[in-house]
Parts: sequence; structure tokens; C-alpha cells
Amino acid sequence: MPVHYSKLRGYKGEIYPVNPGAAQVQGLRAWPSISAIGKPVDCAVIAVPAAQAVAAVEDAARGRVPLAVVFTAGFAEVSEPGRLLQEEMLRVARAGGVRLLGPNSMGAFDLASGFIATFSSAFEHRGGAGWPALGAVSVASQSGAVGVDILVRLRERGVGLAKWVATGNQCDLDLADCIEFLAVDDQTRVLVVYAEGCRDGARFARALDAAAAANKPVLMLKAGTTEAGALAVASHTATLAAPDELFAALLERHGALRAHSLSELSDLAAACVPGIRPSAPRIGLVSISGGVGALMADEAAARGLEIPPMPESGERRMRELVPFAATRNPIDCAAPAMADMALLARFVEIALEEGGYPALACFLSHLGHVDRNFDELRGRLAAIRRRFPERVIVLAILAPPERCALLEADGFLVFDDPARAVAAIAALWQMAAARARVRSVTGDVPRLEAYRGPAISGATDEAAARAVLEAIGIPVVPAQLATSAAQAARAAERFGGAVALKVVSPDVPHKTESGGVLLGVAAASAAQRYDDMIERVGAAHPAARLSGVLVSPMVEGGVETFIGAKVDPALGAFVAFGIGGVFIEAYRDLAWRPAPLGRGEALAMIRSIRGFTLLDGARGREGADLEAIADAIARLSVFVARHAAELESIDINPFVVLARGALALDALVVPRAR
Amino acid sequence: MPVHYSKLRGYKGEIYPVNPGAAQVQGLRAWPSISAIGKPVDCAVIAVPAAQAVAAVEDAARGRVPLAVVFTAGFAEVSEPGRLLQEEMLRVARAGGVRLLGPNSMGAFDLASGFIATFSSAFEHRGGAGWPALGAVSVASQSGAVGVDILVRLRERGVGLAKWVATGNQCDLDLADCIEFLAVDDQTRVLVVYAEGCRDGARFARALDAAAAANKPVLMLKAGTTEAGALAVASHTATLAAPDELFAALLERHGALRAHSLSELSDLAAACVPGIRPSAPRIGLVSISGGVGALMADEAAARGLEIPPMPESGERRMRELVPFAATRNPIDCAAPAMADMALLARFVEIALEEGGYPALACFLSHLGHVDRNFDELRGRLAAIRRRFPERVIVLAILAPPERCALLEADGFLVFDDPARAVAAIAALWQMAAARARVRSVTGDVPRLEAYRGPAISGATDEAAARAVLEAIGIPVVPAQLATSAAQAARAAERFGGAVALKVVSPDVPHKTESGGVLLGVAAASAAQRYDDMIERVGAAHPAARLSGVLVSPMVEGGVETFIGAKVDPALGAFVAFGIGGVFIEAYRDLAWRPAPLGRGEALAMIRSIRGFTLLDGARGREGADLEAIADAIARLSVFVARHAAELESIDINPFVVLARGALALDALVVPRAR
Repeated sequence: MPVHYSKLRGYKGEIYPVNPGAAQVQGLRAWPSISAIGKPVDCAVIAVPAAQAVAAVEDAARGRVPLAVVFTAGFAEVSEPGRLLQEEMLRVARAGGVRLLGPNSMGAFDLASGFIATFSSAFEHRGGAGWPALGAVSVASQSGAVGVDILVRLRERGVGLAKWVATGNQCDLDLADCIEFLAVDDQTRVLVVYAEGCRDGARFARALDAAAAANKPVLMLKAGTTEAGALAVASHTATLAAPDELFAALLERHGALRAHSLSELSDLAAACVPGIRPSAPRIGLVSISGGVGALMADEAAARGLEIPPMPESGERRMRELVPFAATRNPIDCAAPAMADMALLARFVEIALEEGGYPALACFLSHLGHVDRNFDELRGRLAAIRRRFPERVIVLAILAPPERCALLEADGFLVFDDPARAVAAIAALWQMAAARARVRSVTGDVPRLEAYRGPAISGATDEAAARAVLEAIGIPVVPAQLATSAAQAARAAERFGGAVALKVVSPDVPHKTESGGVLLGVAAASAAQRYDDMIERVGAAHPAARLSGVLVSPMVEGGVETFIGAKVDPALGAFVAFGIGGVFIEAYRDLAWRPAPLGRGEALAMIRSIRGFTLLDGARGREGADLEAIADAIARLSVFVARHAAELESIDINPFVVLARGALALDALVVPRAR
Repeated sequence: MPVHYSKLRGYKGEIYPVNPGAAQVQGLRAWPSISAIGKPVDCAVIAVPAAQAVAAVEDAARGRVPLAVVFTAGFAEVSEPGRLLQEEMLRVARAGGVRLLGPNSMGAFDLASGFIATFSSAFEHRGGAGWPALGAVSVASQSGAVGVDILVRLRERGVGLAKWVATGNQCDLDLADCIEFLAVDDQTRVLVVYAEGCRDGARFARALDAAAAANKPVLMLKAGTTEAGALAVASHTATLAAPDELFAALLERHGALRAHSLSELSDLAAACVPGIRPSAPRIGLVSISGGVGALMADEAAARGLEIPPMPESGERRMRELVPFAATRNPIDCAAPAMADMALLARFVEIALEEGGYPALACFLSHLGHVDRNFDELRGRLAAIRRRFPERVIVLAILAPPERCALLEADGFLVFDDPARAVAAIAALWQMAAARARVRSVTGDVPRLEAYRGPAISGATDEAAARAVLEAIGIPVVPAQLATSAAQAARAAERFGGAVALKVVSPDVPHKTESGGVLLGVAAASAAQRYDDMIERVGAAHPAARLSGVLVSPMVEGGVETFIGAKVDPALGAFVAFGIGGVFIEAYRDLAWRPAPLGRGEALAMIRSIRGFTLLDGARGREGADLEAIADAIARLSVFVARHAAELESIDINPFVVLARGALALDALVVPRAR
């Protein structure tokens, strides 16, 4: 198939079929082996049975071929012997200086040069006219089948393609490599990526940064966002699905945009092709139906877009056209405009002239099916499009596909559903905002001294965890370790007022459930409570090592927050912030960011959670000390990034934030298992 | 247009054109007035200028016409004089025994009889072949333009229509009337409704119940779900958008299904047409791509569907077909099935035979474009479809529209996007579950004694609000009203321990913000704190009436919840439950239900909130007394339903729930303004 397709597409380079059993293949001289060709070869396409694949790669190495595309399946994706065979192939390739795409890859193609190294049957559609148009969108997919599906989907909606690659088992080249390549590829202006996982967060981030630097949107669909999906992914490509909240944080930080379905992915790709992005999150809505105007306003508001009212001058001009039109925004040009294309176009034009909206969504309902009006409608709209080249203009219209294509050729984004039209504008704005965010990352990352706290590998009880936080510079509530009832009583007296008692043990993770936590203990009863606690926890966990009991003063008031850190073996180090205490489980209201980060980004993180209203001093509450939280998050982020190899996670819960200052009341450090 | 279209569609009844200036209209004898016809007329279609519309209705009344469809616009939707003219028209109609559809209505049609009383131009599409097929879906839309858009959208995806009606200004007949009519209409099996508001929740609920009783799904799209959308709706049809959470609660209780976009609405309509619903929320997933299998699993899990594994016997049979297939569920029949339709069909068949899934989603990618395989694929799938008539089988396939139509004719639901395919199954299950819920509403509604508490109209301060709750039988924390410092001190001593002080005033709604709340006051300092509080609140609100200070014992422990009630003038009475205190604002984690309800439904309401985990006794916490909450919600619901005319809202916040029992700590009753 690659020989046939490449010939068909007029590939200008030499094609050397390799087949020891044939003198000719498809009219071309065939060669018994790659190394027998004796001329420089750029790429070997390997489509032999699994048992012969390693030998074929060896042959490529002998022929000094720098790249082999391996279609052959039956490796790590099917069995343990397959995995070993794949390792062997990689070893042979590395030794011979051959980079591998695959195995189990559906290959790659480049429409412009006619290099079609894939065996997808999609080009056979429509009696062999199934080729996508040449365009600016390139596709990189871990799964060949998904990649082909995306290709057909884009073709059917008239989006032109540049390059396409399926990475398969990724034993060598992976998605990050493909993204990095496409980021500097002249023909590619939009990247569409399907991922099942990520083996190296740092490399992936670098690739995304390269695309951002080239101002190329990266649109990403990822499977395994739920537990059920992650299980399916694991059985599909043996990929360990990355924890979705971490993957999402990585994409957000590095400016990629997430799609959640194949149709949303192709919507977004189509929206990105013209290369226009709104300069602000403001939308104008013009509709020939007041009802749909309201539906679009709902969608815009739900997606965080502003719907600024028309200036009075614009409203006046519109009312002169149709006295009973709704002229505020959404603009309802009402029934007359459905029959009078000149009138309809005037509304659109006035909305752009007077409203100044960087993005406009027009609902035209079934006008695409009205034969007597369509050509006039198209002509008038095209003239407006030319007058405002920098605005995003999206048409929501029901029309036969060929008319949609005409409108797209005129420079409009075209959708059949008004909600999807508005969603596309919201996505374009998100993309613009993400780019601005990537550029505005500030340098206010705390400079931490070299760590001099306790050994991280041993920081498994609360006393050690407290010492770690103190060494990082995160404020911790005072505490004294009592190893006897008398010590507990003395500590309580010293603190004055009520105290908290907490058992210290590396073997009791859920202290509250085991009776290992007592709050509001009066100093007078501290000794008795110490004895009770040791007995109770000892009974619940007979084998647990008990180092004693921490005695701390009670902290009154403040808001309980959560600061956490997690190191994913593949994705890297991340920090989290949210409202703490028991509410964490119920609402999962956590913001995640890759570590390290500066205080400015930490502040943005704090402001991004739904529960921020509990910290911002509204409704007569005292505002919480946001700087204190931001400093703690940033410090923790620097620490985990630096010690990622030694750490699995750190939880500070609660981190109590007061009007001035903040205090960790409890912490858990989980070192990485060796 | 109605004359033309009705003739065209072979309407069998008499058509009497009325036009005083013509002897003939479209070849039919014309009449100078309706009353001049002198024969029984079923329906008058009024399409005269606004100034003549009232006279036309009068004419219809003289001619004893029972129904007038009023196309004429320029009434309440444009101006105050228009509103008065509309009122006049209604008065005339009522006096003359004429029911009105409109004004500002795009009319109605019935495809089967050829009665086409609308002026939509959609039938002119495709050179006059724009008629939808005759089918089982009927459309009722408040907006004519949205109704036509839905009509074209359904036609384009091959969904057949029965009846269509646009209610316009709804001065007489409204959506509830149309739904009630379609619920008993023989041709209608699925109702598609577009609403902007609702004038009478009880009538709307009755109409939905009639549809549920006839086992006809009601699919509803509503504009104005956000503040921005509600503003747009208000300017469109002068409809006060119903608070969305209340409208949603009404739909849910009465078994209607909500769509959130025009495309979702047509997806759901298409999914409902075959009339098959899954018997359980379990889905089988068969895919020719492991990646898309994972994407479908993500979607299914996110929508609450279970993905039960194949039994071992099924896995074995599949592995015999393709050794490296993923056979668990999602089932990935892998690349060979893409080329071998018999093999692909075997996977689908085994999944149905062995998995027993009530619903199956099959991802077939671009097989709809593969000319050499399509007919065989179709034939094999159709045979399977016939073997399992009671299962929901959805195909996600990329195919030319005519092939999609063939697959639909075979009894499959067909989508291009696998996520939408899974979503359709989830919606069908929701519908089945809603029906079961409507049927299973239990009779455990508390019987409340006649209310003997304080006059509701005067229950504006906390002391009176407490008395209202006590009269309803909702437990309230003990409290004593102190009108002097000495009384406050005596009350605190009597309660023992620390007390809470709260100012009592009908004029201080946010007591905390004004310094009118003090918690944990020692008995010894109660007198001083009383004086401080009166002074502080008096300074903040010089004009406020201060009735004194409530002294209550502090309640230790428990979970702060919120129980509320709201009476919407149009929708009726509702109750709410959620986690209370400061978290209400941050998370809006409230469940709403129409009032009254029984304790069983109240329990379901409690279990439905995200924060339920705080009440269920997980993680070593004591479980909260759910029965006590359910009893309070049910009692409040009966009370507000009974006194809806006098009430605007009741907030019980916090309602503290303990391991045994629960207590209202604070309450606010807002009587309806007269």
C-alpha cells in the first residue's frame, strides 16, 4: 500500500520495494534486502511478520537507514514474549543507529511530498477519492485507528491536512517527538493529538512549549480520564494512564487545549485553521431567533465569555432597521431578516462596527437550505468578512455540506449547532489566554536553601513530617513530643488553654479513625488522656510503633485549607491547593499545577478554586492571608521538584489560614518506595 | 401559505379563504368574512395586520369558530400598547368562546391530515421537497423560529414528524396545553419541547404527568439557564425565566428529560423513536479501536453507566476469533475486524449473547465509507438486530447520510461521534429511571396538623421564625429571648456552659456581618456581651427595630446542613437541602425538589448531594441522623406547599445534624410581599 499510494500521489523520491521473492513489485524493481539497495535510503517501511521484524531492522541498520516505520504488530501490546521481542528490536535499532516509529504503528504520511507510509484504507473511500485536501492541520495519534478516524472526520468537514503520524507502541519515537517535529514543520499550523498516556512529563512539556513558541495550537484528546477508561487504556497499549488531574495541569500550564470527544476535536481543529483568535473574552451574538439568542447567551455565560451590550448608537441604528428588534446583545434581528438578506447583513455589520466584539456568533437557522436567498446571503456576508479580517466570525447554520464549504472558504467558521459555535469561540479565547499565561509566568519562584531537614526516606511519622515543613520554611503549629503522661501534662500547661493530642506513629495512617487524635483537651486532663490514647491506639494497632503523642495548642478560627504535592513517575512533580478538612473528599475542589511555581502562579491557583469565596473576606468574614498560602505552596513546589526522586506525596491537611499568617496543623510525607 | 400548503398536502376538509377584496384565492371561492361562510368552521387562521386582528377574532367568534391561530405579531412582545391590544383580543376571544393560539405564533401543522396552518418557509427547501417524513415525533415550541430550526434539524437526520405547534405569546393556549394534547394524540410517541419559561408549574406538571402516563418521552430544551440567557429571554418574549434549579427539579420529578443544545435535542429525539429503553444502567462497548473503546468507557463512567465485564465464556469465544483482542469490556476486536465483516459481526453477536448487556454501543469508525464492505456489514448487523429486538444498539460510524439512514431503518441508533452514542444510551436509561421514579413516589408525606404558629406575614425576626418551625414540628435549639443584660445573664446561667447570643430584629438580615451574632460566650460575660451587641448593631443599623437578644446553648459537634424552601410565583413551592454554613455559597451543592414530598423522597434528596459523604459516617466519622433530616425536609415541604400564597422563602441555616437527632440553630422566614 505505501508503494501504491506514494506512486499515486506523485512522490518524487526513489521507491525501493524489498521482497526476496520477487524481481518486480508494482512495476518497480524489487530488492532482496534493504542493505542490497546500495544507495542512501531515508526511511524503511517494515511490514513483515513479527518473527522477521527484528531481522528487518537489522537489515535497515546494515543499510544505514536512519528511520524505520514498523507496521508489524504482535509485540508489547499482546504478550510478555512480545514485549521482550520489542526490547530486542529496540536494542538492535539503537546499536545500528536506526530510529523506530512503532512497532504496531499505522505509519505516517506527508500529503505535500506524497510520502505515504501508511496502510490505512481511508484513501479508498469514495471510489478512491478519499484523500483529504492539502492543508495546515497535522495529526499525531498514539492509536492508528483513532488517527484514521480523526483523518476521515477532518476530511468530511473539509479541513485540509499536512502530515499524519501514528506512534503505536512508541518503543522509540513517541508523541513528544512528533509534537516537537510538527512544532517546527513549515506546513503545519495546527496540531491535533490523540494520547493515551505520557511517559515523560518534562519532554512532553518541552514539546508543547516548542509548539507554543511557534504559535501553533495543540489540540489534545486523551483517553483514560476515568477509572474505567484508564483500565481500558491499560489493556489497549499497556500504557499506564496518567492521573487525569495531573495531565490536565500539565496541558494547561503549557498552553495545549483539551478536547473531550472526537467531534469536539474536529470542531476545534476547524476553528483553529483560519488562525484568528479573539483579543478578549467578549462575544457578540446575532440571531434570527430571540430564543436561540438566549440559548447562545446561556452557552457563552456558562463558558465564561462576556456578552457586552451594544452601545446606544448601534441600538439606534438597528431599531431604525427593525423597530421591534432586540438590539442589546444578544441581538435578535427578528422575522423580517429571515426573508431579507440585505437587512440581515446590515445587522451583522452594525454589530461588528458598533459593538467592537472581537468575536461574533451569528445564528442563521435553516437559511442554508433556502435556495432563492443563499447566494445573496453568502455574497453579503463575504463582503463583511473582508471588512473585518481580524474578528472571529462564526456562523451557526443548517445547510447542505457543499454550502457549508463555500462559507468556510469565505473565511467563516461554520457549525450546525449554535452552542457548538459559541463553544468554539470560547475555546479560541482559552487558547489565546493560555498563550498569554505561558508568556507571563513570573520569576517569583522562592529560592530555597539546601534542604537540611530529616532524611526524607524516614519522614513517615508526623514529628518528622513537621520537621520537613519547618526545614522548607512552611509555618507549623508549635508542638511538643510527649513520651509519657507527665510530659504531656507539662506541655499542655506550658501552652496554656486547651490543647490537641495526636499520636505519633509511622504505622497509623488514619489517626482519627483509630482514636489517635483528641482536640480541645484541658491541661488538667492531658495526662489521663495521654494514657487513654496510647492504650486505645495500641489496642487498635497492636503491631504499630508508637513514638509518643504530640501536644499542640488549639488554633482558633481561620479556614482549613489543603496543600499537597504528588510526584508521578512519568509526569513529574505537582502541587495542589484546596479547601481542606472533611470537605476535600466531598467536593474534590483542588487546583493542580506542575512544580515548581512562583508565588504569582500560586495566587492564581488559590483564586481558581470554587471555594475561594471562603478566603476572600466576603459576607463579613475576615479575608484570609493569601500571601501566606501562596508562599507555602511555592515553597512546597520547589521542594518537591528538587526531591522528586525521593518523594511520592506530601499532604498538609489542614493548613489553617488566618487573617494574618497560616499554620500547618498536620502533615503526612510519603517517601518513594525503593 | 396555509391555503397553498394544505392543498398541496391533500387536506381533505374544506378550506375557506377569507378576503373581502377578492372573489377567489388560489382557485378557491373567497369569503368577505368568517361569519359570512355560514358553515361550521374548525379553525380560523388569522394573518392580518395587528390593527385588524381583534376584529378578525370577533369575526371568528360570530362565526362560532372554536379555535383561532393568530400569526399576527406586534403585541405584548413589542410594546405596552401591544400588550393592551393583546389583552383586548383575549377578552374578545373569551367572550366569544374562541380559544387562541398566539398571537405572534408561527402556527401549527398536522402532517397526516395535511392541515398546515403555518407560514414557515422550510417546506420550500430542496426545490419544494422540504417536507419532513411522516413519523412519531411532535414538536411544541414557544418560539416559531426555534420550532422551525428543530423541524429542519430532525428532517435532515431523517426523523419523522407527526404534529408541530408554535405557541408564540401564549395569551391563551400555552405549552402545557400542547403537551397535554400531544400526550393523548395517537400519532405522537415522542414530544420535543422548546420552552422559555413556565407560567403555572402545577399545570405544566400535570401535562408532563399525562405524557408519562402514556409512556411518551418529553424532551425539553429551555433557554435562560444563566443570568445572561434569562435577560435575553425576558427581552424576547417578555417571559420571566423560571429559576433554573426549580425548573430542573420540576422536570426531573415529572419524568421529562432535559437537553442542553439543539443538537442534543435532536440526538435524543432520534434515540427515543424506536421506543426501546435499557432495563438497567449497564452498557457493553464494542470497538474496532482500543483507543475509542477507552474513550467510550470514559464517557459511560462519567454518565453513571456501569461497564460490566464479559463472562469468561464470552471472553474465551472472542479470543478464539482474535487471540490478541481485548475481550473484557470495552471489547476491542482489533484490526482484523476492520477488514472482515463476518468477524466484526461475530464480536457484536457474542457481546450481546454472553454479556447480556441491555444496551450496546459499537464503534465502527469509517466503515460506512468503505464501499466494498458496507453492504455485507449492514446485512450482518441487521440479522443481529433482529435477534435482539429488546436491546438498545447504537452504532457510532462515519458514513454518508444515505447509509446512516439505511442503518437507522434497520433499527439502530446511529451517531457519528462515539461519545454522543454513549450519551444517548445514558439518556435513554435516565428516561427509564425517571419513569420508574415517577411510579415509585411513596405516600409517606407527613400529615401536619393545622398550623397554629405565629402569623406568617409577621414572622420576620428569628424569634418568630423559630416559633414557625416549632409549630411545623421541626426541632429547634432551646433559646430564651432576653430584652436586658440581666435577662441574658440569667438565661446563660440556666443553660450552663457557653452560649450563643443573636440579636433579634426584622430589619437586620445579615446578623453576622453586623456584629449581631456571638458564639461561645461564657455565662459570666453574657450581660456585658448583651450590652455590647445592642450598641454595635444599633450603630450599624440606626433605624432597625431591635426586639432583644436570643440566648441559646452552644451545640457541639454535628454537621451543619441547610434546609430551605422557596415559592416561585409561577412554578410553585420547592424545598432544598444541602451542606450548610459558609459552604453553601462556595459549592451550591443543593438538591431541589417540588413540595410537598414524603420522607422517602427527602432521603433520596439527601443522598443525591455531593456532600453526602459528610453525613454517611465514612472515614471514622459518626453517621448523621438521616431520618431526622428527612423528617424536617418533608414537614417543611408540606408546610410551604400549604402556605405557598403567604410565603416567599424559608431558610434553616444551619440545621445541625447529630448522630441522633438534629436541631435548627437559625431560621429566616420571608413572607410574600403583598
